[in-house]
Amino acid sequence: MISKATLSRLPIYLNYLRGLHSDADAYISATAIAKALNFGEVTARKDLAAVSGGGKPKIGYKVSDLIEILEQQLGYNSLTKAVLVGAGKLGRALLEYKEFERYGVKIEAAFDSDFKAQNRGVKTQVFPMEQFENYCKDNDIRLGIITVDVDSAQPVCDRMIKSGIKAVWNFAPCNLKIQNDILIKNENLALSLAHLNITLNLKNI
Amino acid sequence: MISKATLSRLPIYLNYLRGLHSDADAYISATAIAKALNFGEVTARKDLAAVSGGGKPKIGYKVSDLIEILEQQLGYNSLTKAVLVGAGKLGRALLEYKEFERYGVKIEAAFDSDFKAQNRGVKTQVFPMEQFENYCKDNDIRLGIITVDVDSAQPVCDRMIKSGIKAVWNFAPCNLKIQNDILIKNENLALSLAHLNITLNLKNI
Repeated sequence: MISKATLSRLPIYLNYLRGLHSDADAYISATAIAKALNFGEVTARKDLAAVSGGGKPKIGYKVSDLIEILEQQLGYNSLTKAVLVGAGKLGRALLEYKEFERYGVKIEAAFDSDFKAQNRGVKTQVFPMEQFENYCKDNDIRLGIITVDVDSAQPVCDRMIKSGIKAVWNFAPCNLKIQNDILIKNENLALSLAHLNITLNLKNI
Repeated sequence: MISKATLSRLPIYLNYLRGLHSDADAYISATAIAKALNFGEVTARKDLAAVSGGGKPKIGYKVSDLIEILEQQLGYNSLTKAVLVGAGKLGRALLEYKEFERYGVKIEAAFDSDFKAQNRGVKTQVFPMEQFENYCKDNDIRLGIITVDVDSAQPVCDRMIKSGIKAVWNFAPCNLKIQNDILIKNENLALSLAHLNITLNLKNI
């Protein structure tokens, strides 16, 4: 049984290894991975041993094997189906973002109350909001992405929960009210940029 | 002198207070803020006292005053100028994102090597990459945003550093190589969604 803490770090290892663009037969040690990611060496070694059974002495892990093992472990072969509400600029950018499927999530459909937004050329089909509840129930959707503006975010979130969605990825910069058993991850891009800006101003470089 | 730890939390307080959409004369206690943000009560009380001189006994802080104090403290009246490279879908979504200026950063210009991208209808002007270095030097730009694809990210980052940029906000899902004195914040959206997905699958709700 792999611990929750280990599981939560697996995508970070996977992301790092993919970013290396290594040769087919390249090897890497747990120590090198730990150093690159600023993790403790013991943590990295234990995490990787838990999923892989351990690397080869002195040379470590074959990068391509480790990537495959991590993908399997994270269930990336069985994609979680998600829906997105709000097919504006940010929403459409996310719909065309290719990386999500490589990390286990497929945005199956998008919804928008604006008829024009429904007909903009994106690969993923954009449906009218009236079809939202039925779509989610029929397709057993458990993950919802909110890219509407602040004023619409709470009603959209409420409709998601009512339709059976259990995890919400929210890009609207506001505090959504949800019950305790629903997962929420706020992606406040302005806050993220603000942090970088403050650090820059503090360092005064 | 306000500590770095306190400063790093100020945008989070500001974001929370703005999200309340309070009446003009509403008050809030440090305790209530701490609870909502999952911060320690002592932390929140000390942070807010450091910037404001303390709330009124029993009733706390006037929300509108506290927002104004936080904005002043964070220098949000003197916007940091930023440039963005990569005027694709995600880049253009960021260019139209209104929240950044409310958090102290203004994206002054965007750059793209693709002539078509330069002429897409966004408010912020999109210049050809040839003008990048001069623009950054002439306008004393210290903050750069990367929204190009993985293959172009490292060369773009290198050009940013050479042009005097000291902080990089990177949306390309890769590990950029930079010198130690440059700040980098990786915004890996796929990784963020992957974490939510794993937590959802773990909870099995």
